[in-house]
Amino acid sequence: MEQRISLITLGVADLAGARSFYSALGWKQANDDADVVFFQAGGMVLALWGRDQLAADSRVRDGGGWGGVTLAYNVRSPAEVDALLADAKAAGATIARPGAPTFWGGYSGVFVDPDGHPWEVAHNPGWSLGRDGSVSLSSPS
Amino acid sequence: MEQRISLITLGVADLAGARSFYSALGWKQANDDADVVFFQAGGMVLALWGRDQLAADSRVRDGGGWGGVTLAYNVRSPAEVDALLADAKAAGATIARPGAPTFWGGYSGVFVDPDGHPWEVAHNPGWSLGRDGSVSLSSPS
Repeated sequence: MEQRISLITLGVADLAGARSFYSALGWKQANDDADVVFFQAGGMVLALWGRDQLAADSRVRDGGGWGGVTLAYNVRSPAEVDALLADAKAAGATIARPGAPTFWGGYSGVFVDPDGHPWEVAHNPGWSLGRDGSVSLSSPS
Repeated sequence: MEQRISLITLGVADLAGARSFYSALGWKQANDDADVVFFQAGGMVLALWGRDQLAADSRVRDGGGWGGVTLAYNVRSPAEVDALLADAKAAGATIARPGAPTFWGGYSGVFVDPDGHPWEVAHNPGWSLGRDGSVSLSSPS
């Protein structure tokens, strides 16, 4: 297995509502299917699909809440963390944790999308963030 | 917000066991911290962290099971799907859905890691898979 992930699918209760939320944050849908939304996200894809359909397709029982997966989005400064959290709130997210210094020496906060999926928004001075948005675990040179 | 994801963190009950599982699939840890595992995954990072710690850090209540997120890993042929599912089973995964043709015209199966996180392994003839493993929503040319 190569060290890569091709697709992350977020199960949603209301596909149109979820699409509107991510659209309000600037994401542009790449497909024109009625029942699934695909966003190109760098070298991978983020999908929105009905949570019941995703559970059935994945052959898992739905625990009904959060299930042990958190996404993160890294930015280039603490001020960018605060700005993005404000944008997410304006788009309809819940701010679960406001921007603040973290125990690991960075600065982050968390927004939760309308379907309960948390996104940490983080500035990590120990990781490199390329011009194309790619993240590298090596320290900035 | 740019269309990208920096980090996916999987909450795990037994960090050493989870690390062993992904190591058996060929993933190489990039850090030497005792309490968190980072894997470079293309232009993003996959992390393993204690599920309780992740829930607390994300300020979410843990539903206790699957929570509406499924990862997928795309490969170049149906035979590769079957081979990877076999590797995952040998590494300790549960095969939730064996490889078979899908309703969307591809071929896929699902393995579930020791912490209940499902991975669809898929061959999608309608998407492009680059030499570096990056996925593009455009059709292969």
